[in-house]
Amino acid sequence: MKKQQIKIPINRKNINKSGKKPKTVNNAELGKTKPRTAAANKKSLKVRFLGGVGEIGKNMTALEYGKDIIIIDAGLTFPGENMPGVDLVIPDVSYLVQNKSKIRGIVITHGHEDHIGGLPYILKELNVPVYGTKLTLTLIENKIKEQKINDAVLNCVKPDSVIKLGCFSVEFINVNHSIAGAVALAVTTPVGVVFHSGDFKIDYTPISGETIDLTRISEIGKKGVLLLMADSTNAEREGFSMSESVVKDTLEHVFSDNAEKRLIIATFASNIHRLQQILDLAKKFKRKVAFSGRSMINIAEAAEKIGELKIPDGLIVDVEKIGNFKDGQIVIVSTGTQGEPMSALTRMASGEFNKVKIGNNDTVVISASVIPGNEKMIYAVINNLYRLGAEVIYESLEPIHVSGHALRGELRTLQALVKPKFFIPVHGEYRHLKKHARLAEEMGMKPSNIVIAEIGDTVETDGRQIKFGEKFQAGSRFVDGVGIDGADSFVLRDRIHLSEDGLLVVVVAVEELSATLSSVEIVSKGLMMTDSVVADTKAALSNTLKQIDLRTVRDETELAGIIRRSLRNFIYKATKKNPMIVPIVMVV
Amino acid sequence: MKKQQIKIPINRKNINKSGKKPKTVNNAELGKTKPRTAAANKKSLKVRFLGGVGEIGKNMTALEYGKDIIIIDAGLTFPGENMPGVDLVIPDVSYLVQNKSKIRGIVITHGHEDHIGGLPYILKELNVPVYGTKLTLTLIENKIKEQKINDAVLNCVKPDSVIKLGCFSVEFINVNHSIAGAVALAVTTPVGVVFHSGDFKIDYTPISGETIDLTRISEIGKKGVLLLMADSTNAEREGFSMSESVVKDTLEHVFSDNAEKRLIIATFASNIHRLQQILDLAKKFKRKVAFSGRSMINIAEAAEKIGELKIPDGLIVDVEKIGNFKDGQIVIVSTGTQGEPMSALTRMASGEFNKVKIGNNDTVVISASVIPGNEKMIYAVINNLYRLGAEVIYESLEPIHVSGHALRGELRTLQALVKPKFFIPVHGEYRHLKKHARLAEEMGMKPSNIVIAEIGDTVETDGRQIKFGEKFQAGSRFVDGVGIDGADSFVLRDRIHLSEDGLLVVVVAVEELSATLSSVEIVSKGLMMTDSVVADTKAALSNTLKQIDLRTVRDETELAGIIRRSLRNFIYKATKKNPMIVPIVMVV
Repeated sequence: MKKQQIKIPINRKNINKSGKKPKTVNNAELGKTKPRTAAANKKSLKVRFLGGVGEIGKNMTALEYGKDIIIIDAGLTFPGENMPGVDLVIPDVSYLVQNKSKIRGIVITHGHEDHIGGLPYILKELNVPVYGTKLTLTLIENKIKEQKINDAVLNCVKPDSVIKLGCFSVEFINVNHSIAGAVALAVTTPVGVVFHSGDFKIDYTPISGETIDLTRISEIGKKGVLLLMADSTNAEREGFSMSESVVKDTLEHVFSDNAEKRLIIATFASNIHRLQQILDLAKKFKRKVAFSGRSMINIAEAAEKIGELKIPDGLIVDVEKIGNFKDGQIVIVSTGTQGEPMSALTRMASGEFNKVKIGNNDTVVISASVIPGNEKMIYAVINNLYRLGAEVIYESLEPIHVSGHALRGELRTLQALVKPKFFIPVHGEYRHLKKHARLAEEMGMKPSNIVIAEIGDTVETDGRQIKFGEKFQAGSRFVDGVGIDGADSFVLRDRIHLSEDGLLVVVVAVEELSATLSSVEIVSKGLMMTDSVVADTKAALSNTLKQIDLRTVRDETELAGIIRRSLRNFIYKATKKNPMIVPIVMVV
Repeated sequence: MKKQQIKIPINRKNINKSGKKPKTVNNAELGKTKPRTAAANKKSLKVRFLGGVGEIGKNMTALEYGKDIIIIDAGLTFPGENMPGVDLVIPDVSYLVQNKSKIRGIVITHGHEDHIGGLPYILKELNVPVYGTKLTLTLIENKIKEQKINDAVLNCVKPDSVIKLGCFSVEFINVNHSIAGAVALAVTTPVGVVFHSGDFKIDYTPISGETIDLTRISEIGKKGVLLLMADSTNAEREGFSMSESVVKDTLEHVFSDNAEKRLIIATFASNIHRLQQILDLAKKFKRKVAFSGRSMINIAEAAEKIGELKIPDGLIVDVEKIGNFKDGQIVIVSTGTQGEPMSALTRMASGEFNKVKIGNNDTVVISASVIPGNEKMIYAVINNLYRLGAEVIYESLEPIHVSGHALRGELRTLQALVKPKFFIPVHGEYRHLKKHARLAEEMGMKPSNIVIAEIGDTVETDGRQIKFGEKFQAGSRFVDGVGIDGADSFVLRDRIHLSEDGLLVVVVAVEELSATLSSVEIVSKGLMMTDSVVADTKAALSNTLKQIDLRTVRDETELAGIIRRSLRNFIYKATKKNPMIVPIVMVV
């Protein structure tokens, strides 16, 4: 048994509630599905998709068999353009809340936001034990502390180990990805083995850690896998992903070519292997390292504490002290690879970051890829850095970042080793899932054995067949302001309406309803209205009100409706916009 | 003289006002800058940047010498995320309006929106003659008709011809681009020749039309070019752009591989050469062509009328009639390559386009690249097409589109032929301009001879030196609702505020100011407020109002300020949002 409880005190009561304390089984047990009774055979495994299919982000899948449910990942996604004001989007877990008593645990494949980001919110409703590797749990711990969750049960599991959760046993298998501690899962269920790749790539020359455990995957495949679910992020890209070592070579050139210049390297804080390379190169080239950005500092500290990051003694200096060194003696490691408005790099680029003023003698390296949707923000940062005189090295110019997701060549390798009976592509927009499904077909799998699922779908298998089961409530919940459900689709519709056409507030004071009109006030926001248009609007409104007998109007709501209808066409003609018209009737 | 006036009647008065009727000069004159008097030598050429530098879009540059100004292009750009509700963005032409009497004409390099889209608005303020090639003017004509401009003077110019505009003579030189009729300009000025590439690429095997006139460019270069301004769009991409012929091969495969299926091809309506290929292939493979989307129909008709597009007899069928043909006998040519919400393709993908219902037997080809910022929209369309069962072929999978802009290899060819003394990279974000400048440096140009300009910069040259001149008023104007300046930065700030945090309207009725409070009403939009928060807010407000002596409050504005300040913190605590608070004080 290779698991250890970390830091957050175990709440034994919770563990007992969630079924039983997890047990480990040895690998030999894996895949040996015991013959079931006739009754049991009628039950089937239900795979329920709560997120991460038909989208990139908020990955979450549940496996359900009889009275047991386990959850794989609990991610978040960042809001799209059609969700103004929303902070985060997490999966709707209504189904799981309704079936709380069945849940045996949440198994996390790795510590990226799209796999762990929903946890702080979901744990408030589903306080069930969480299982993950060391770095994954460290990152989760940081997050749930911020949300003041103190009773979470986090169980640390090492790759190669197996845990028992209800009728399921889950084996953790080391894979390569752009974060340390990433695993795939082989889940032995009563109907057969389900292999979930998590996010993965095949890196034969990783910087630290080991190559994805192809040997174990091949053993599992040989024993027989019922269902494969695999990462489709790069299912449109032919070939093989580049190794993290390629980045090492590029970074080494950057250090040697810029000996006299100050280096600023932006990367994802969670990409510990990338961070390790930068620290090692800093040591080799006799530079001090200053971390910039709160998440960079937090994660580096946490990763060092658990031994995932090795920081040479005396290497780190406070970013406030960089003035004490020559430019050629410093490398600043910063957040902000996506041009996030409040990040250290964005503020450096706009000249608003007092601790680091960018100039001619700076070389800025953005060691990350652009997440789709962030293009304009990050290019604005790059343009501003150039304007300030810096040299900028980024992905479209140099191999300064490699993808963490398998390309088609690697996806074929996984299919060939796992040899599943059934296949469900996951982690991708519909186009990625479609391409991944076709890749499996090209390798000889029957189309009827492949299912493309969407959020809210249940896929059922009894071990012999695979088919769609019932739909269940699933989708998005918005974290906004006070927390979950701080916005709903009506609020978002109003926000979008307000942002496109602005607003016209019309206040009408009436001295007792059914009596005389007292006064009229008009206020517009987000809408250009000249004084003459305002005057004309007031006149049009007065005219409308004069023509109706206020005594025949039932109540304020009816009068508000009359005002809205009478102004809509008038305002459109005058401004060619359809502002939100908010009539307020005051009875005074 | 190879120019002809088309369609829109010439307003002789306007032509005279703009100086004189344009004269042509023969090529031999070009580049022969006559010796100037001492007084004239003190004058310098001023290149004024109104758009298209430090951005991709709304290209517009003015050349000014003494009492003469010519304008090159008058484009628009589409609004970014920070401009909600805005329809279009055009250059601020205040400087030109102030110097109206100097303007001798607007010369257009080609008919794309980022070169002609500002014209309908700008011509209302600057009614000066416009010069361009046949297709360019046809597209301009379509646009200005929509804006009900009837007195524009459009002068048709053929490649190779030269026109005289004040002290400038302008030669039009054929180049390759993703639209027919694209030209570069060689402008002979009193201080030397200015070569402006327009948007260009080098295509040695174009589908129709001729290869960019490298011979003439090389002659002009040999005679001596003072200043080169060249397209930087692809200045980050190494190598050479692919020829349009590559697309022909891919499209031919699509036709032959999908003999039994219905084909739907989305492309830019203005890419006449692409359209021609599709028509030719349809004829070869015995399919009828149905155009879908208003702009596709309009442009195809206009291009046929001027002979730029050859439509074989009997090839076209109305999209309403496609039901009369087998799937394998039809190709639908559609708009919507960028996932524009109202376009034909987007409506097909969402199942809302009654004329074309997508199913299993459809192959959809998106023959265009994704304009940065449109990724999410077009991928949503692709995902939906797959969901409906269609096959989708798009750029990340096949060479179904080629760039219309020169890559670094071609940019070097241009530099080598033009051999300019000075260089200003144009048409690109700052990063592109920077890379293009460096390319020129690498080829041996002195850094001090290269200028990176931004909007509002004047660059001056007397033929010997180049330097920045004075800044002038320039930037963006928003076309929104009623027209130009339908929004300003304050309105946009309000719209963004409203979209992120919503709105709280607080109406307070007071029986005569300095007297008693009558009633209070609260309305929120785009903000989640529970009934209890609304009640608490009302209570908090009443409390505030009770504590002040209304008789000491000067006027409604002061009372509104008090209300806003008192509610701001309260609302933030209750909702963790900062809605726009709109207090309205009614004296009744």
